[in-house]
Amino acid sequence: MAENRKEDENVVFIGSKPFMNYVRAVEVQFGRDGCKEVIVKARGKFISRAVDVEQVVKHGPIRNSVSTKNIKTDSEEFENKEGRKVNVSTVEITLEKK
Amino acid sequence: MAENRKEDENVVFIGSKPFMNYVRAVEVQFGRDGCKEVIVKARGKFISRAVDVEQVVKHGPIRNSVSTKNIKTDSEEFENKEGRKVNVSTVEITLEKK
Repeated sequence: MAENRKEDENVVFIGSKPFMNYVRAVEVQFGRDGCKEVIVKARGKFISRAVDVEQVVKHGPIRNSVSTKNIKTDSEEFENKEGRKVNVSTVEITLEKK
Repeated sequence: MAENRKEDENVVFIGSKPFMNYVRAVEVQFGRDGCKEVIVKARGKFISRAVDVEQVVKHGPIRNSVSTKNIKTDSEEFENKEGRKVNVSTVEITLEKK
């Protein structure tokens, strides 16, 4: 359980909050002791935003110390409000300390 | 020049046409003789759509014969209508024949 919590701290899930909140969240994570990786996750229309966050981090103050380790896409099935099963695309962008 | 043309034929650039047009375009490319790779490209808000296209292709009729080889993100600078330089995120999803 402690292990799970530690893992979650390295994840920034992209939603509809102000854009720079997410950029700062990634930068703050990398500023923490022992943080080697931060995973930016998003679903559906927020995938474009996740790439924007990745790009802004990689051109911002910590640009010389982070690189993209891996980008993974997938689909998730969930039930919408009408009870119909729909698929949504997902992305996981793993940034690592150089 | 012939080389360039051949390369372009393997690229599907995602925009605002009906969604299934792009899915079919990828499937048609893979159906061509000697086609080993198709690159799905998108910029800005169309990045989410590019991932949707990739996922639908990978769950459709040719699901058993294609896999994702590489996903690359980047930024491009361009001048907007007001003459201001702005950055846009880009994605290139390379699908390959298994």
